[in-house]
Amino acid sequence: MCERNSKDYMKISHDDQTVKDISNLGEFGLITRIASASKPGIGVITGIGDDAAVTDVSPGMQLLTSTDMLLENVHFRRSWHDPYRLGRKSLAVSISDIAAMGGIPRWALMSLGIPADLSLEFIDEFTRGFLAMASEHGVALIGGDTCSSRGGLIISVTIMGEQYPQLVVRRSGAQPGDDIWVTGTLGDAAMGLRLLEQLPLHEGEGWGEGGSILISRLLDPSPRTAAAFALAETGMITAMIDISDGLLADFGHIAEQSAVGGTINLDAVPLSAGFRAASSYISEFPYNLAISGGEDYELCFTSPPSRREKIALLMKKCGIEATPVGIVTTSPEVCTRAADGTRCNQKNQGFNHFTR
Amino acid sequence: MCERNSKDYMKISHDDQTVKDISNLGEFGLITRIASASKPGIGVITGIGDDAAVTDVSPGMQLLTSTDMLLENVHFRRSWHDPYRLGRKSLAVSISDIAAMGGIPRWALMSLGIPADLSLEFIDEFTRGFLAMASEHGVALIGGDTCSSRGGLIISVTIMGEQYPQLVVRRSGAQPGDDIWVTGTLGDAAMGLRLLEQLPLHEGEGWGEGGSILISRLLDPSPRTAAAFALAETGMITAMIDISDGLLADFGHIAEQSAVGGTINLDAVPLSAGFRAASSYISEFPYNLAISGGEDYELCFTSPPSRREKIALLMKKCGIEATPVGIVTTSPEVCTRAADGTRCNQKNQGFNHFTR
Repeated sequence: MCERNSKDYMKISHDDQTVKDISNLGEFGLITRIASASKPGIGVITGIGDDAAVTDVSPGMQLLTSTDMLLENVHFRRSWHDPYRLGRKSLAVSISDIAAMGGIPRWALMSLGIPADLSLEFIDEFTRGFLAMASEHGVALIGGDTCSSRGGLIISVTIMGEQYPQLVVRRSGAQPGDDIWVTGTLGDAAMGLRLLEQLPLHEGEGWGEGGSILISRLLDPSPRTAAAFALAETGMITAMIDISDGLLADFGHIAEQSAVGGTINLDAVPLSAGFRAASSYISEFPYNLAISGGEDYELCFTSPPSRREKIALLMKKCGIEATPVGIVTTSPEVCTRAADGTRCNQKNQGFNHFTR
Repeated sequence: MCERNSKDYMKISHDDQTVKDISNLGEFGLITRIASASKPGIGVITGIGDDAAVTDVSPGMQLLTSTDMLLENVHFRRSWHDPYRLGRKSLAVSISDIAAMGGIPRWALMSLGIPADLSLEFIDEFTRGFLAMASEHGVALIGGDTCSSRGGLIISVTIMGEQYPQLVVRRSGAQPGDDIWVTGTLGDAAMGLRLLEQLPLHEGEGWGEGGSILISRLLDPSPRTAAAFALAETGMITAMIDISDGLLADFGHIAEQSAVGGTINLDAVPLSAGFRAASSYISEFPYNLAISGGEDYELCFTSPPSRREKIALLMKKCGIEATPVGIVTTSPEVCTRAADGTRCNQKNQGFNHFTR
């Protein structure tokens, strides 16, 4: 049976003052605590509290489903990531996947593997962040799993969304001659990570406001749902993906599944002022970081050049910067072109688990 | 774009003989390897390989969703669990949740956190087991996530199913006077665990065939999909749950959500011959293990006594043993009654994470 109430999602009930930690609360107490903080959602018939959640997909729409696992000391560090923003990001990366299909995010499942040293306060703050992100994007938390972890904190999130079949945007539709677009600026999250690696204990301190913004891009990304939905609705785009592993790797997925290639003009890749300022601190060629650094959660999409002005206008209306950065080619390779015209073939250099 | 082929799901391609381990294969290679072994499924428009899977829920049906996390050395040990049966069980526990709602399991997402010492052969065997279980229950693998784990092996599975609204069975419909039923025999998995704990390295050896069956109940449970679906279809049952945490705890969930209580007759609780034989090896009262031991993945359901014969007949047709073990009461307590008539109030004693 669905446990709902009219409480504000930002407030987690602390009425039981004797509840000091998770072992005191117990598994089912923890589930009830999380459920009581969640809000009802569109299409939710039965939420947290039965063997399975029951939802109604909107008539005529298809179901979109994606899942992400975030592991402590692999995807995040507790020393860098405060629990509130970790909760936000845990859902944001999944919402971004639904956005990249042109879908409307609807329902989420949240599973936690909780180490013995984690406080109840951490879980409360994490949940508060998760539910704030959910609320901002119209997502309802409808289920999950909680268990004890003997390793670090484990987060697994499944998201479901929906969309009319004709508006779903896949990776496979890019055509030679299409523009390659990206939203926002690239490399900020990767640069933020470089800053944290150099200054692990005092977030942003010494790097000024620009540094804080870069670090915030890493720790609290914003999925581009509104822009993605607007793009899908117009029918003007041929393929889309979210940039989680870096532009080269992610456009590489579009190229592979569309059986095309592409050329990225390096000097067209949008860089933020903060990124440019911080570039002097790193030893590598900054464009490498911009096109190969992951976790920006911007969109990469393709569209015929005839649509260029309309897309620019549409993105402006959404309040999102969007930039054409290259062109889809018939060659199966993904290349970059520097300002002086030199070209080099690129292998996908995005983040890859299991490479040692 | 969905990566499908006509290969038998039991065969995982080993055409690349240079692929010796996971680091050699890489993240996307591993995903392609898993995807190439999976089969198409009902309602699957786009499976593994895009930002999100796209599926069609059958017209008029509601979506059922559940998720389970299985952690090494919390839920399983690699020394006890061979990868093939671990793969089977990882999906079986989720299928069981859809069954407990009276639903038809359809689509699964599988996320793996893979430790550095895990072999590619282990993943192949795990996937083979997962897909064998999927095939037996008509489930298609449509997505997931893979990443490296710095702790043990992490498995997170999300399952989706569907059912007409009027046939969905919740925990909340039990009525005072209803019979409490269980399928199969209880406590076998818990007894199997006791055997393994006493004899960790030589599975079943020395315990005879009966011991092997008990251990198999623990390591390779069978979700009761056919029985659950048949029960839901008749409309004769008022509430249902799968027994994952032990009968007392799981009927406790029905009681709580139906605002009722219940009395379990201990001598009516069905015990297997293997369980009875092994009981002499353990120091505790065997009925405690039968009603509080988890992981049987049998069904517990409630139904008016007037339906008793019809239900017995229906279960016989399904080839499933089903036994009335008690009665739903108006009292909010869940009690047990021994053969000599003594009663004792019971707290839910099933497995609970976070209790130290």
